[in-house]
Amino acid sequence: MSEVEAMRDVLRSLVNRDGPQPTLEETRAAYEAWGLSNPLPDGGTVTPTSLGGVAALTTQTPGARADAALLYLHGGGYAIGSASGHRHVCAHLAAQAGITGYAIDYRLAPEHPYPAAVEDAVAAYAALLAQGVAPSRIVIAGDSAGGGLTLATALAVRERGMPQPAGLFCISPWADLTQTGQSYRVCAERDLLVTKTALDAWTVLYAGERDPAQPLISPAFADYAGLAPILIHVGADEVLLSDSLKVAEAAGLANVPVELVIEKDMQHVWHFMLGMLTQARVSIAAAGAWMRARVG
Amino acid sequence: MSEVEAMRDVLRSLVNRDGPQPTLEETRAAYEAWGLSNPLPDGGTVTPTSLGGVAALTTQTPGARADAALLYLHGGGYAIGSASGHRHVCAHLAAQAGITGYAIDYRLAPEHPYPAAVEDAVAAYAALLAQGVAPSRIVIAGDSAGGGLTLATALAVRERGMPQPAGLFCISPWADLTQTGQSYRVCAERDLLVTKTALDAWTVLYAGERDPAQPLISPAFADYAGLAPILIHVGADEVLLSDSLKVAEAAGLANVPVELVIEKDMQHVWHFMLGMLTQARVSIAAAGAWMRARVG
Repeated sequence: MSEVEAMRDVLRSLVNRDGPQPTLEETRAAYEAWGLSNPLPDGGTVTPTSLGGVAALTTQTPGARADAALLYLHGGGYAIGSASGHRHVCAHLAAQAGITGYAIDYRLAPEHPYPAAVEDAVAAYAALLAQGVAPSRIVIAGDSAGGGLTLATALAVRERGMPQPAGLFCISPWADLTQTGQSYRVCAERDLLVTKTALDAWTVLYAGERDPAQPLISPAFADYAGLAPILIHVGADEVLLSDSLKVAEAAGLANVPVELVIEKDMQHVWHFMLGMLTQARVSIAAAGAWMRARVG
Repeated sequence: MSEVEAMRDVLRSLVNRDGPQPTLEETRAAYEAWGLSNPLPDGGTVTPTSLGGVAALTTQTPGARADAALLYLHGGGYAIGSASGHRHVCAHLAAQAGITGYAIDYRLAPEHPYPAAVEDAVAAYAALLAQGVAPSRIVIAGDSAGGGLTLATALAVRERGMPQPAGLFCISPWADLTQTGQSYRVCAERDLLVTKTALDAWTVLYAGERDPAQPLISPAFADYAGLAPILIHVGADEVLLSDSLKVAEAAGLANVPVELVIEKDMQHVWHFMLGMLTQARVSIAAAGAWMRARVG
C-alpha cells in the first residue's frame, strides 16, 4: 500500500461521517492522542512556558538559534487541539528552520469564542518582542484554524501599530468562515477529514452571533496592506482549497509577497502525519527553509 | 534610484497610453529591439533551427544537458514578439536548469489567428519527442500570451493522447481572454505595461469570431485533469494577477500540483528585464531550479 493510501485509511478510521458523533471532550482527547503518537525531531526537547500569560510549549533542537522564533498556532476549528497535540509539527518546523519553537494554548471556543484566540496570539507575539526577539526574527505559523489565526494575528498586530513578523506560514488555512468557494463542492468527496457541515458547526462555536465574514474571523476577506510575506501549503484534495486561493489573491492585490503550494493527493494538514508520510517531512523541510530565509 | 523605480521608468517610457499608438509593425520592431538589448548567459550560444516545421532558436550554455529541453513560448499578445526577442529569457532559464532551450516562432495573429499558435507549439513538442527527448525531460514555459499558450499546449497534447511534459512554467500568464477578475480593477493604475483595452484588442486579433472563453484560448477555464505540474510567477502589480489565481485554482481542483509565486512590486514579465533587474535574475534562478528538479 502506498503512503498516500495509508494516510487515507488513517483518516477514514478517524472520521465517522454517518455514525454517532463523539462529544467535544472525546474529540479533544482523540486529537491530542493522535498528535502525541508522532515523533519529535532528533534531540528535540519540549518545555512548558508562558508567553504573555498564555500557556505555551517551547520546542528546541541542538544548534537552533535562541534569537529567532516560530510562534505556532495549532488547528482544530478554534474548539479543539492543543499545543501539546501539535508539538511535533511545531518542533519539526522550528528544527528545519534552525530556530526556537513556541506552540501556544490560546483559549478555545465555545468556552472562549472570538476574539479570545486572536487576543492570546497577539499577547504571545508581544511577549516575544518584550523578551527582545526582533520582529524580523519571528515567523508566525499555524494549521487549519491556526492558519487563519496566523493571518488574523498579523492583521491585529498591524491594527495595533506593532511591527510585522518576518513571515507568515499557513498550512491548509481556514480563512473563510462562511464556507464559500468551488472546492467545497469539487472536493467534498475527496476530502476525508473536513466537511462543510463540521466547519459550519465550528463557526457557530467560534463566531457566535458575530458576522463570520468580518476580517479578523475570516481573513480571506481582509485588506492585507503592509502584511508580512505569506507562504501557504494546501492539499489538492481539500474542501478548504478555495480559502487558500482567496488569501493568495487578496494578499497579492495588496502587494504582499505570496507563495502558494498546492500539493497533489494531499489531505487537510498532511504535515501533522509526519510520522508516517514522507510528503509531510518534505513539506516541513521546504517550509523550514522558507522560514530560515525569512529570519535571515 | 532603486532598481524597481528604474524598471518602472523604463516601462513608462515604452508605453504611451494617451498619445498616438504605434503600428503593429513598429510595436513588433520595438519589442524585438528591447529584448535584444539584454545579455545572454556566460558562454551562451544561439543557433537557428527548426522544430516540426516551426522556426526556432536553440540556446545552449557550457555543460547543459542535450537530453533535456526547455520549449519556450514567447509573449506578445499572440500578435507580437519573437524567438529572437525572447532568446535571453529562454537562454537564462535553460542555463539555470542546465538544459537546452528551444524558443519557437509560432505563427502570430492577426495574420494567423487561433489555432495556429497552439498547432505550432504542439508540432514543436512532437518534434522534440521524435528527436528522442523523453517527455519526462521536457519543460514547456512561456510568458504572458506564451504562458497561456504553455497551458493550451499541454491541454492540446493531452487531447491528442501524447504524453505530458515534466512541467509547465508560466510567467505572468494571460489565461483568461475575457479579461475578468479583481486585478483588472485593483491593479489598473499600478500595471505600467498592460491594460484591459490592449488585451481586448489582442483578443480580437487572436480569437476573431470565436468564443474567447473556450479552454484552448482561455486555459483559465479548462479542466486540468492529468496535466503536468505547474509553476506560476506573477507580479503583484499586474492586471493579469487574477488570471494566475484562476489557473492555480482550476489546476489544484483537478489534483495537479501547483506552485504560485506572487512577487511584490513586480510588473508584467519582469524576467524579461534581466539585464537591469536583480529580481529578474533571482526569479529565473528559482524557476531554473524548479525545472532542473522536474527533468530529474
